[in-house]
Amino acid sequence: YSSTPLTLQSINPKVLKCEYAVRGEIVSLAQKIQEELQAKPGSHPFDEIIYCNIGNPQSLGQQPITFFREVLALCDHPSILDKSETQGLFSADSIERAFQILDQIPGRATGAYSHSQGIKGLRDTIASGIEARDGFPANPNDIFLTDGASPAVHMMMQLLISSENDGILCPIPQYPLYSASIALHGGTLVPYYLDEATGWGLEISELKKQLETAKSKGTKVRALVVINPGNPTGQVLAEANQKEIVDFCKKEGLVLLADEVYQENVYVPDKQFHSFKKVARSMGYGEKDISLASFQSVSKGFYGECGKRGGYMEVTGFSPEIREQIYKVASVNLCSNISGQILASLVMSPPKVGDESYESFSAEKDAILSSLARRAKTLEDALNSLEGVTCNKAEGAMYLFPRICLPEKAIKAAEAAKTAPDAFYARCLLNATGVVVVPGSGFGQVPGTWHFRCPILPQEDKIPFIVFRLTEFHKGFMDQYRD
Amino acid sequence: YSSTPLTLQSINPKVLKCEYAVRGEIVSLAQKIQEELQAKPGSHPFDEIIYCNIGNPQSLGQQPITFFREVLALCDHPSILDKSETQGLFSADSIERAFQILDQIPGRATGAYSHSQGIKGLRDTIASGIEARDGFPANPNDIFLTDGASPAVHMMMQLLISSENDGILCPIPQYPLYSASIALHGGTLVPYYLDEATGWGLEISELKKQLETAKSKGTKVRALVVINPGNPTGQVLAEANQKEIVDFCKKEGLVLLADEVYQENVYVPDKQFHSFKKVARSMGYGEKDISLASFQSVSKGFYGECGKRGGYMEVTGFSPEIREQIYKVASVNLCSNISGQILASLVMSPPKVGDESYESFSAEKDAILSSLARRAKTLEDALNSLEGVTCNKAEGAMYLFPRICLPEKAIKAAEAAKTAPDAFYARCLLNATGVVVVPGSGFGQVPGTWHFRCPILPQEDKIPFIVFRLTEFHKGFMDQYRD
Repeated sequence: YSSTPLTLQSINPKVLKCEYAVRGEIVSLAQKIQEELQAKPGSHPFDEIIYCNIGNPQSLGQQPITFFREVLALCDHPSILDKSETQGLFSADSIERAFQILDQIPGRATGAYSHSQGIKGLRDTIASGIEARDGFPANPNDIFLTDGASPAVHMMMQLLISSENDGILCPIPQYPLYSASIALHGGTLVPYYLDEATGWGLEISELKKQLETAKSKGTKVRALVVINPGNPTGQVLAEANQKEIVDFCKKEGLVLLADEVYQENVYVPDKQFHSFKKVARSMGYGEKDISLASFQSVSKGFYGECGKRGGYMEVTGFSPEIREQIYKVASVNLCSNISGQILASLVMSPPKVGDESYESFSAEKDAILSSLARRAKTLEDALNSLEGVTCNKAEGAMYLFPRICLPEKAIKAAEAAKTAPDAFYARCLLNATGVVVVPGSGFGQVPGTWHFRCPILPQEDKIPFIVFRLTEFHKGFMDQYRD
Repeated sequence: YSSTPLTLQSINPKVLKCEYAVRGEIVSLAQKIQEELQAKPGSHPFDEIIYCNIGNPQSLGQQPITFFREVLALCDHPSILDKSETQGLFSADSIERAFQILDQIPGRATGAYSHSQGIKGLRDTIASGIEARDGFPANPNDIFLTDGASPAVHMMMQLLISSENDGILCPIPQYPLYSASIALHGGTLVPYYLDEATGWGLEISELKKQLETAKSKGTKVRALVVINPGNPTGQVLAEANQKEIVDFCKKEGLVLLADEVYQENVYVPDKQFHSFKKVARSMGYGEKDISLASFQSVSKGFYGECGKRGGYMEVTGFSPEIREQIYKVASVNLCSNISGQILASLVMSPPKVGDESYESFSAEKDAILSSLARRAKTLEDALNSLEGVTCNKAEGAMYLFPRICLPEKAIKAAEAAKTAPDAFYARCLLNATGVVVVPGSGFGQVPGTWHFRCPILPQEDKIPFIVFRLTEFHKGFMDQYRD
C-alpha cells in the first residue's frame, strides 16, 4: 500500500487514540477462533464461542417480545392490515396499534425521512410514557429519537467539547462508549472512581476531589456522566444519592448526562429506578434550573432489541439557542430509522390491562426479568466461590464486574505476553472455554486491581455449563500461576 | 436560562459553524406555517405545504416497493413464516427470501447487534450485487453497512480531518452534508466549481487550480468528493471524465470519496452510471493503487426508502492498519439497524426473472423511474419558460437546479430583509404557494449567481398544479421587482 495516501501518521490522531474494548482485541481473537472452528471442527477444546463481550441478549438466544414485533411487521407492510388473513396471524391490539401509529405518521409514509427529532406523534407517546413513569410533565419537543443511545451521546459530546481543555467527569469503571466518544471529540476524560467496597458507591466527595484536580490542571469541566443502573458495575443509585448528584451539578454548573438505558433492569426488591429528571423535579428544580440529557435505548430492558437501533434522549434545561444547535446537529443525519422510532414508542407504551396481548406480553416480560435475576444470582454466587474472586451484586443492568486477585506469577506472564493482567486472564479464558469476556482494563479500574465484565445474559439452561467451565478454567489458571 | 451552564460562547464552535440548509431556516418557516394552517385553516393562500426541500420520495406520496416491504415484515416477525395464512398474504419469493436472510443471521437473531460492519451474509449479497453491476470482483470485507449514507461520510471525514489544515475538495454546488460534516470535524472545504454552462461539467483544470490555491495557503488536501449522479445538479459524469478524475486522485495522492447514492437514477438514454471502482479497475488500477470510498443508500434509487436508514460504503485501497481504524470507528456505534441492512442487501439483489414477484416488481420499478423522467422533463421545460430562469437537464439524481436572474430591486429587497437574494425568493415562494425549495446559497454557487434546488419528486398528478403555482408566483414576483 505504499502508493496509497493514508498512513497512521497522516490520519486524525483522535481516531488513533480512541479505544472501544467491547469490540476490541479480545473480540477479534474470538472471531478468528470462530473461523478456525468452522474451518476445522475440533481444533479448539470447545464447540462454540459464547459472546459475553457485550449486552446483546438476542445473540444469546433471548426471543423478541411478540407484540413489539407484530406491530413492527404491520408497520413495515401496512397493505396487509385490511386483509382477513391478518387477523389470524396478528393480535387484535397489534393491528389496532399499527393503525394508530400509521395515523401519527404524516401521509402514513413509513419510508420517509421524519422530522429530525423523530415523528411527532411517537414523541407524544414517549412523553406520555415518561410522565407516567415519573409523575412529572414531559414535553415531546424535548425528545430526540436516535439510532440507539450511542449517537445521542456523541451528539452531546460534540456540543460540549471544543478542545482538550474541556473535561467530562466519567465514572471509573465506565462503559467505554464515553471514553471513546470523548477521545473522538478531542476532550479530556476526568475520572471519578466508584467505590467497589460499598457496592460501587458514588461518593460526592470523590466527585469534588476529581473536579478540583481537573480545575487545577486547567481543565474546564463541562458535564458529569452518570450511568444508572450502572454499566459495568450493576449498581442502582439510591434516590438520596441522586439528589446529592443533582445538587452537585447545579452548584458546579455541570450538564448532567444521565445514561438510563437500563431503567427497566432492576433485580433487587430494595432498589428502584428513579430518573434524574424525576429526582430533579421532586427537589423543586424546574426547566431553567438544571441542564439534563437522559439517554434511553430499545437495546436493553427486557426487550433487548439491539439490532433495531432505537433510542432517544430527553433534553431539559437548555436555552432555546442551545436547543437550536442540538437540533441542527441532529438534522445533519436527517432522522433515525423509523422502525427504531416506532419501537422506542412501544417500549414506553406497552400493552395495558384489557388489551388482547396484555397477558402474553406480561408473561414474556416477567419470564425474562425473573430469569435475569436468577442468572445474576447464580453467576454472582459462582464467581464469589472462586479463589481470589470477589463480586458485588448485580442490582440492575446486565452485568457482573468481579474483581480477580491475580497471583504475581500470572502478572509476570501477562507482562511477558505484553498485555494487561486481566486481558491475559480473559484471553486464557477464551482459549480454554470459548467464553468471551471483556477485561476490566477496557472499562477502567483502580490501578493495581483487575476485573472482567461478565453479562448475565446467556440463556438459563446454559448457565450451569458456563459456571462449570469458568470454575474449571479458573482452578487450572490459579494452579498454574499460584505463587 | 441564566443559571444553566451552556451558552453559544461556551459550546463547541465547530457546531456553531456547521450549516445544513436542507433542514434549515426555510424548513423551520414551513413547519411554522404548517402549524398555523392546522390551527387556523385558510390563514394562508394555500391548503398544504409541499416539502420540496429534500429528496424524500415517500413523503410526497411514492409507495414503497412491495417485495422489499414483504421481506422486511417477515424478517421482523419470523414466527409467522410457517403459518398457512402467510402464503395468502405474502409472495412465495418474499417468504423464500426471508428464510434465506434469516439463515444468514447468526442464531436467526434479527434483534441482535451484528458484526460492526454488518451481517456477513448480507455483505456477501451486496458484494455479489456490486460484482454483477461492475463486472469486477467485490469483497464483502470491504463493505461497511451504515444507517443511511450520512454516517459513512462522517466516518471518512473523521478519519481524514485532524485540523483546519486538512482540506477536502468538494464540488460547488454540493450536497450540504459535505460542508456540514467538514465543519463539524473542523476541516477546510476546498471548493471546485462545476461549470453550469456545460451542463455542470467537472473540469480537471478547475480541480488542479483549486488544489494549487489550497496548497499555497498551507492546506493539505486529503480527499476529493465527487457526487455522481450530481446533487443538486443532476449531471451524470461521462466515463472519460471519470477516468481523468481517477488519474487526478492517483497523481495527487487524494482519497476519492464517491457519492454514488443516485446510481439507479439516470433518465437520459445517452448517459449511464459507472461506479468509480469499475472505472478505476477498468483502467488497470488494483486494490493497492487508489484509495476509494463509495457511498450507497436505500434512500434514493426507485425505492426511496429514506426512513429505513440503510446504506453502505465500499472501501478499497486502504492499508490493513488504516482499515483497522475505520473498523474501530464503525464499532463505536456497534452496528447499523438490521432492517436497513436487510434492505441494503435487497436493493442490490432484487427479484430475478422467474421469481413470483419479478413482474410486479419490475412494473413498480419502471413506473417510478419513467414517471421521474417525465416529471424531470416537465419541470425543466416549465422552469426554462420562466422569465430570467435557465435550467440544465436533470440527467440523473432527483433534482433540478435552475438559475434565476433576479432583478436589482429584488436583490435590494433581500438585503433589506437581511437574507440572500435566492433565500428571499424561496421565502416568497413558500409564503405564496406553500412550496418549500432550498435556495442555492445552501449548496454553494458562483458568487453573484442565484439558484434554487427543486426535486422532481412530487407525484405526477400534482406536477401541473405545482407548475401553475410556480409560474403564477414567478410572474408576480418579477412584476413586483422588475427594474
